[in-house]
Amino acid sequence: MTTFAPIFVPPELRDAVSDAAWLAAMLEAERALANAASLAGAIPAHAAAAIAERCEPELYDLDDLCAQGRAAGNPVEPLVRALRAQVGEEAAAYVHRGATSQDILDTAAMLVARNALDLVLGDLDAAARACASLAEAHRDTIMVARTLLQQAVPTTFGLKAAVWLDGILDARSGLARVRAERLAVQLGGAAGTLAALGEAGPEVLRLYAAELDLAAPELPWHVNRSRVGELAAALQLAAGAAAKVALDVVLLAQSEIAEVAEGAGGGSSTMPHKRNPARSVVALACARQAAGHASMLLGGLAQEHERAAGAWHAEWGALSGLLATAGGAVAATREALEGLVVDVGRMRANLEASGGVVLAERLSLLLAERLGAAEARSVLADALAGGGALRDELAPHLPVEELEAALDHDTYLGSAATFVDRALARYRRELGAGG
Amino acid sequence: MTTFAPIFVPPELRDAVSDAAWLAAMLEAERALANAASLAGAIPAHAAAAIAERCEPELYDLDDLCAQGRAAGNPVEPLVRALRAQVGEEAAAYVHRGATSQDILDTAAMLVARNALDLVLGDLDAAARACASLAEAHRDTIMVARTLLQQAVPTTFGLKAAVWLDGILDARSGLARVRAERLAVQLGGAAGTLAALGEAGPEVLRLYAAELDLAAPELPWHVNRSRVGELAAALQLAAGAAAKVALDVVLLAQSEIAEVAEGAGGGSSTMPHKRNPARSVVALACARQAAGHASMLLGGLAQEHERAAGAWHAEWGALSGLLATAGGAVAATREALEGLVVDVGRMRANLEASGGVVLAERLSLLLAERLGAAEARSVLADALAGGGALRDELAPHLPVEELEAALDHDTYLGSAATFVDRALARYRRELGAGG
Amino acid sequence: MTTFAPIFVPPELRDAVSDAAWLAAMLEAERALANAASLAGAIPAHAAAAIAERCEPELYDLDDLCAQGRAAGNPVEPLVRALRAQVGEEAAAYVHRGATSQDILDTAAMLVARNALDLVLGDLDAAARACASLAEAHRDTIMVARTLLQQAVPTTFGLKAAVWLDGILDARSGLARVRAERLAVQLGGAAGTLAALGEAGPEVLRLYAAELDLAAPELPWHVNRSRVGELAAALQLAAGAAAKVALDVVLLAQSEIAEVAEGAGGGSSTMPHKRNPARSVVALACARQAAGHASMLLGGLAQEHERAAGAWHAEWGALSGLLATAGGAVAATREALEGLVVDVGRMRANLEASGGVVLAERLSLLLAERLGAAEARSVLADALAGGGALRDELAPHLPVEELEAALDHDTYLGSAATFVDRALARYRRELGAGG
Amino acid sequence: MTTFAPIFVPPELRDAVSDAAWLAAMLEAERALANAASLAGAIPAHAAAAIAERCEPELYDLDDLCAQGRAAGNPVEPLVRALRAQVGEEAAAYVHRGATSQDILDTAAMLVARNALDLVLGDLDAAARACASLAEAHRDTIMVARTLLQQAVPTTFGLKAAVWLDGILDARSGLARVRAERLAVQLGGAAGTLAALGEAGPEVLRLYAAELDLAAPELPWHVNRSRVGELAAALQLAAGAAAKVALDVVLLAQSEIAEVAEGAGGGSSTMPHKRNPARSVVALACARQAAGHASMLLGGLAQEHERAAGAWHAEWGALSGLLATAGGAVAATREALEGLVVDVGRMRANLEASGGVVLAERLSLLLAERLGAAEARSVLADALAGGGALRDELAPHLPVEELEAALDHDTYLGSAATFVDRALARYRRELGAGG
Repeated sequence: MTTFAPIFVPPELRDAVSDAAWLAAMLEAERALANAASLAGAIPAHAAAAIAERCEPELYDLDDLCAQGRAAGNPVEPLVRALRAQVGEEAAAYVHRGATSQDILDTAAMLVARNALDLVLGDLDAAARACASLAEAHRDTIMVARTLLQQAVPTTFGLKAAVWLDGILDARSGLARVRAERLAVQLGGAAGTLAALGEAGPEVLRLYAAELDLAAPELPWHVNRSRVGELAAALQLAAGAAAKVALDVVLLAQSEIAEVAEGAGGGSSTMPHKRNPARSVVALACARQAAGHASMLLGGLAQEHERAAGAWHAEWGALSGLLATAGGAVAATREALEGLVVDVGRMRANLEASGGVVLAERLSLLLAERLGAAEARSVLADALAGGGALRDELAPHLPVEELEAALDHDTYLGSAATFVDRALARYRRELGAGG
Repeated sequence: MTTFAPIFVPPELRDAVSDAAWLAAMLEAERALANAASLAGAIPAHAAAAIAERCEPELYDLDDLCAQGRAAGNPVEPLVRALRAQVGEEAAAYVHRGATSQDILDTAAMLVARNALDLVLGDLDAAARACASLAEAHRDTIMVARTLLQQAVPTTFGLKAAVWLDGILDARSGLARVRAERLAVQLGGAAGTLAALGEAGPEVLRLYAAELDLAAPELPWHVNRSRVGELAAALQLAAGAAAKVALDVVLLAQSEIAEVAEGAGGGSSTMPHKRNPARSVVALACARQAAGHASMLLGGLAQEHERAAGAWHAEWGALSGLLATAGGAVAATREALEGLVVDVGRMRANLEASGGVVLAERLSLLLAERLGAAEARSVLADALAGGGALRDELAPHLPVEELEAALDHDTYLGSAATFVDRALARYRRELGAGG
Repeated sequence: MTTFAPIFVPPELRDAVSDAAWLAAMLEAERALANAASLAGAIPAHAAAAIAERCEPELYDLDDLCAQGRAAGNPVEPLVRALRAQVGEEAAAYVHRGATSQDILDTAAMLVARNALDLVLGDLDAAARACASLAEAHRDTIMVARTLLQQAVPTTFGLKAAVWLDGILDARSGLARVRAERLAVQLGGAAGTLAALGEAGPEVLRLYAAELDLAAPELPWHVNRSRVGELAAALQLAAGAAAKVALDVVLLAQSEIAEVAEGAGGGSSTMPHKRNPARSVVALACARQAAGHASMLLGGLAQEHERAAGAWHAEWGALSGLLATAGGAVAATREALEGLVVDVGRMRANLEASGGVVLAERLSLLLAERLGAAEARSVLADALAGGGALRDELAPHLPVEELEAALDHDTYLGSAATFVDRALARYRRELGAGG
Repeated sequence: MTTFAPIFVPPELRDAVSDAAWLAAMLEAERALANAASLAGAIPAHAAAAIAERCEPELYDLDDLCAQGRAAGNPVEPLVRALRAQVGEEAAAYVHRGATSQDILDTAAMLVARNALDLVLGDLDAAARACASLAEAHRDTIMVARTLLQQAVPTTFGLKAAVWLDGILDARSGLARVRAERLAVQLGGAAGTLAALGEAGPEVLRLYAAELDLAAPELPWHVNRSRVGELAAALQLAAGAAAKVALDVVLLAQSEIAEVAEGAGGGSSTMPHKRNPARSVVALACARQAAGHASMLLGGLAQEHERAAGAWHAEWGALSGLLATAGGAVAATREALEGLVVDVGRMRANLEASGGVVLAERLSLLLAERLGAAEARSVLADALAGGGALRDELAPHLPVEELEAALDHDTYLGSAATFVDRALARYRRELGAGG
C-alpha cells in the first residue's frame, strides 16, 4: 500500500488489498482446504466443520501474527498455530493438513487479486464507456494533432478518444484473460509433491480449487511464477493505458491550450484561481508507482529450488501495491474521463491559430504535383519562413480555388472517422454494449 | 545490444537485432508501403517498382544516416531523403507517401521482433524438449527438495524438470501468442489520420500488412503502446523461465552438492580445476539485463498526444536489448539443459545424508496419530535435537516396521510422478511432439 | 509501506514512516514556518503562538484529510483548511503564509527521512560491529572461497566478514553524508519565488531551517530532485550491502554446506526439522522491495516546470516504502549477524573435502616453474581428471616435501589477514570504536 | 550500447564505451599488472617488458575472443590465452600472474568509466555554463510559472535557468566525487586473497593502482559493489538533471506556448513546417534508457560469495549502456541549451494573457487584509468566476491605485533575483568561472 493511500486508491480497492483482506483470504484458503480434504476422505468431516467454524478473521490479529511470523518469515506458520489452538486438540491435527505456508499464501494472493481485479475491471469498463461516449460525441470535432508536442496536422477529438479507447480495451482484454485463466489455487505441500496427502493429493487439489472457484493448476507453481508475472504485466499495461489518457488530459488542460478541463478541478492551497487536472495527476502518480511495483514482481521470476529465499516473500507487498496503484490509476482516469469538459471552440481556435501551417503536409503534396518535389520543397520553405500569411505567400504558386480548398482544415481528416467507427465497433463487440 | 555481446547472444540473434537488421527492415517497410500504395492506386506502379529496386540495404550506411538523423531525432527522415535521391526525381515524390517516420520505424521494429522471436521460440522449444527428456528419464530419480535452500522432503529430479518444463511452456505460450496476434504494421501518417492517402488509407493499410505478413491494426498505434508492452512482458517472462532453470542448475552444481554439471563446464583464467556452470551463469546475466530492458519498455507506455517526445525514441535500444538478452537467456539455458550431466547417485547420497531428517513431516503425522499432536511435536523435537540417529531416537515411540517404512524415502514421493506425467502430457499437446 | 509489514520492518521504523508520522511532520513544518515568519516579522507573534498550539496531530485525522485531499491531489490543502478552522478567524490568515503545499510536504518528507535514517544508521552501525567482531574472531578461520558458487581457493571467514564490513561501511558513509548534508527544508511559495513573503523570504527560509534543524537550501528544490535521488540511492546501497551479507548467509547455511546458521532459525509450518535462515530471507525480500521503490524515485527525477504533475506525488509512497524496506533489510541483516553461529569445523571439512583440488592454482604455478607452462597444464589436467587423490597423481612430478607443502591449505591464504586488518582499522576509524 | 547509437550518443563517447575501448582497457590492465609485479619483484622485468610489448589492441579481435569466452562466461580467459601465445613460452607464465579474470575486467570497467566520465563532466560543465548565461541574461525576464502545468504566478526565466543550473551543479558535484574518489583498480586474485602473489600482494596492488592512476582499494571489491552502485547512481542523477531541462524545453517549445525554441530545430519526414525540439527529445529518450541501465546495476548489488554467478556479468553491458545514455542525455541537453532561442515577448504575452489571474495569490492576501480571510475568499472566487476582467470585478473592493499596483506582474517576483544570484555564485564557486 502507499502513503496517503486515500488520495490515490478508492476505498473498496484499499479494502480489497488490505492486510485484513489477506487475513480473510488465508483463512478462506485453510477452510477450503479442510473442506476439500474432508470431501476427499483425507480428514474427518467433523474436523473440517470445526476448522470452518474457526476460520473467522475477527478471531485473529494479523499484526500480532506477523510479529510472531518474523521468525518464520511468513504469517502462515503462526496463523496455523493460532487456528490449531482455536479448533481444539482433536481437530488441530487436521488443520493445514497436506499444505505448506506457501500453498495458503499463494492461494490467498490469488483470492486478493481476484477481488481487486473485479474492481479494476469495473473501472476499466467505465473508462472505456466514457471514452466511447467521447469518441462518438466528438467523432467530427476537429482539433490539431500534436507530435513531439508540436502542432502537426488536423485530427479529431473523436479519434483521440478512440485511440484512448483502443488502449483501454487492450488493457481490459489482457486483464480479463488473466482473471479468467491464470488465477489458480496453490497446493503442493512441503515441496510440491503433496506427499502428506498420500494418494488423495490430486483429488484434494481439484476439490480445493472448485471450492474457491479458482483454476486447478496442473502442477504446483511454487517456483513457476508465470502466473504472478502475467498478472503483474497485465496490471502494468492497464496502468499504462490509464496513464496515456491522463497524460493527454494534463497536456490538453494546460492554461495556454485549455481544450479540456476536469469537471471537478482540484484546488490549490495558495492559488485560488487554479483548476488543476487533479484526477489525471493522481492517475499519473499511480501509474509511476505501479511501474515500480510491477518491476519488483517481474524482476523476481527466478526462484530457487522448491521455494525461494526472498523473491517469493518480496511478492506480497509488491502485489498489494501494484493492485492498489494500477487500480488507482484506472479509477482516477475513469473519473477524469467521466467529468471531462471539452471546449470544442478552443480546439478549433488552437487549430486555426497556425494560419494553415498545420496543412503544410497537404500543401507540400499539392505543390509537388505542380512543381516537382524539389521546387515544391523550396517554395514551401520560403512560404513558411516568410512573414506573411500562408495563403498570401502561396498565392503565386497555386490557383486560388485549389489553394482555398487546400487550406480548409475540415477536409484534411483522412480516415479519422473510419478509425473512430472501428474503435466503437470493437467496444460494442467486446463489452457487449447496446449502443 | 550489449558489451561483449558474443558471450551472451547467439550469432543469428545478434544479426537479427543488429542495426543492419533494422536498416533492412526499414527499407522493407518502405518497399512494402510503395507496393501497397501502388496496388491501391495511390501511386503509379512504375514508381513502386523504382522504389523497390532501391530498397537495398547495401546502398545505405545506417551510421551515417543516424548521424544526420540526430537533428531529426530518428533515422527515417534521412533515410527517406537518401532513398529519394536514389530513385530519381520522378519516383522521389512517391517515396514514403502517406507515411510518417514512426510508421516505418514501428513496422521495422515489428519485423525485427518477428525474426528474433522465431529464433527465441526455436530455443524455447528445444529447451522444452530437453526438459521433457530429463523429466521422462528421471521420473523416478529420487533427490531432496530444498525450500529456502534447506533440505525439505524427498522429491524427484523428474518433478524438478517437470516444473522447469511447465514454466518454459508458459513462456512459450505467451510469446507464441504475441508472435501470432500482436505483431502488426504501423501506418497512420503524420498523426494517425492517414490524411495524405485520402480515401485510400484503409486499403493501403490492409495491403501493406498483407505484403509484410503482419497483422493489420484496426487503428494506428503510434501512442497506444500495448503491443510493445505485451511483447516486452512476454520476453521478460521467457527470460524468467530460463533463469529459473539456470538458477537451479547453478545451485545444484555447487561443489558441495554436485548433483548436476554442465556438460561443457567453463574454464577459469587462474584455477585449472574449475568446472563452472558457465551456460547458466550467462543465462542469469542475460535475464538480469532483460529485466532492465523490459522495465524501460513497460515504464514508457504513456506517450504524449499523437507522438511521444522521448518515450518512443527510448524503445528502439530497449527492444533490441531485450530481444537479445531474453533470447540469450533462453539460448544459454537450452545449451545448459541439452548438455546437463545428472549424478543420480549423488542425488540419493545427499538425500540420505540427513539420516531421515527430511522425513520429519511424515514422522510428525505418524507420531501425531499415536500420541496426539502436542506430544508428537515434543517427541519429534527431542529426537531431532538428540545426538543419535533418528531411527534410534524414535524407536521407543513407534513399532519397528512402521518406523522403518516411514524412514523409506522412496515411498514418500506423493504425487510427484503424476505431476511429471501431467507436464509431459502438456508438452506433447502443445508442441505436438510424438513422445 | 508493505503487506505483512511487521515481518519485514521493525516497529520503530514502521512508526517513523507511518501516515501518523507524516501528519506529525507536516504539522511540525506548519508550526516552524509560522514561528519563523513571526521571528522575521512577517506575521504577528500571537498568530504564530495560536498556530503552534493547534499543530497537534491528535486534532486531525489524516485519512479523512486525504479523502478530501483527493480533489487537490495532496493532503496539505485540506490540512491547511482544517488548521485554519482550528486556530480561529484571526490567526487563520497567517496559517501556511508564504508556503505552497509542496513546501510543507517536502519538508515533512525530510523530517520523516531524518527520523527513519537515524534508525537505519543505528542498525548499520550495529551490523558493522557484528561484522567486525566476526572478522576479528575469525581472522584466521580457514574456509573455502567460492566463485560462481564453485569451490575456488582457501580463504578465511575473517576475510569474508571483512568484505561484508567494508560494504556496510561504504553504505553507512554514503547514508551519513546524505543525512548530514542533503536533508533540507523546502520553502519556495507558490512557484519558487517566495513572492507572498515579500522581502522577508530568504530570512524566513533561514529561520525555518534553523527551527527544524535541517539545512537551508540556497534555492527551492521543488523541481530539482537531486536530494531525493541521492537519498534513494544511498538507501538502495544500504539495502544492497545488507543483502550481500544475507545472500552469503543463506548460501552458507544450506544443509549441504552448513558452515553458518542463524542463532534463532525460523520454523516451518509443516517441517519440524527446518532451521531456516529466516532473518536473511527477510533481508533479501526487503532489499528486493527496496530496489523497486528506489527505482520509482530515481526514475522520476525529471519534473515539469515549477511543480510536477504526478512524478512528485509518486514520491511519497516510494519514499516511505524505501525507508521501510531498506531499513528492514539492514535490521534483519543485523539480527542475522548478531546471532550468527559459525561452524569452524565444518568450514575446514568442506575445504578439505576437495582433497587439495582447490589448491590447483598454486600447484599449477609450482608445476609451471618445473615443467614450463604448457607441460604443467597438461600434467595438472591429467591429475585432476584422474580418479586418484591429487597427492598421488602428482607425486611423480614434484618432490614429496614440496608437494606436501603445496597441499597445505593453511599456507595459501595470501593477504587475507592483511585485508582483515585493514577493514578493522577502517571500522575503528569511522565508527570511533575502541576495539 | 544502443540501437541507432549515433542519434543518441556523441562519437567520442561512443568510442569511449565501445568494445574496442574495453579491449584496450583490459590490455592496459594486463600491462600495468605485469609492470607492477615486476617493480615489486614478483616477476622478471624482461617478462613485463615482453608483455607490455604485446598489449596492443590491434593484435586481438575482441569478437573472436568473446566467442571463445562464451565457454568461460567472460572475455578475459581467452584474452589471457591469446596474450600468452603472443609473448612466447618464456614470458607466458608471467602473464596475468596473480590475477583473476574479474581483476582485469573490473579494472577495465573503471578505466572505461573514467574516460567516459571525463567526457560527461565536460558536457555537464558546458551545460552549466549555458544555464548560467541564460540565468544571468534573463535574471529579470518575466514569465509565468506553471505548476501541474497550469499557470500559477509570475516568475523569471532567469530563475528557471537557475534551478536548472542548481540541478546540474548537484549532478556534477556527485559525478566529480565518484570520479575522484571511487574509481579504483581491482586486484584480489582467484578469490580476494592475492595468494598467488605471496607476500608481494599488497605492494603489487599499490603499484598497479599507481600505474593506472586509479585509487588503490583497501580491500578487493569483487563482491562489494558499492563503487559500481555509486557510479550508477551519480550517472542516473546526471541524466535526471539533464532530463529536467529537456522536459521544460519541450514543454516551453509547444506550439501554443512557444517561449523557447531549439536553435537547430529538427525536421520531420512528412511535415515541412515542424521545428521539433529534437535535442531535448533525444535527451529525454536517453534519460529513460539511462534509468533502465542504472536499475540493472543498482538491482545487482548483492553478489554471491567471492564472485557472483551472473550479477557481475550483467554489469558490463549495463555500465556501457549507462555511460552512453546518461552521457547522451547530458550532451543533447547541452546542445539544446547552447542553441536555445528565448522569446522574451512571448513570455510576457503568455503571462499577461491571464488578465491578472496569476496574481490571485497576491490579491487574496490583499483582500484578506481588508475583508478578513473568509470574505476575501468569497469575493475573489466570485471575481474569478465572473465573466469580466479581474480589474473590473475587483474594483468595488479595493482602492484603485492599490488594485493597479497589485495587478502589476513585475512587482510580484519575490526573491527570484536573489535565488538567481545564489545559483550564479555557486556556479562561479564550483566551476572557478571568472564571470
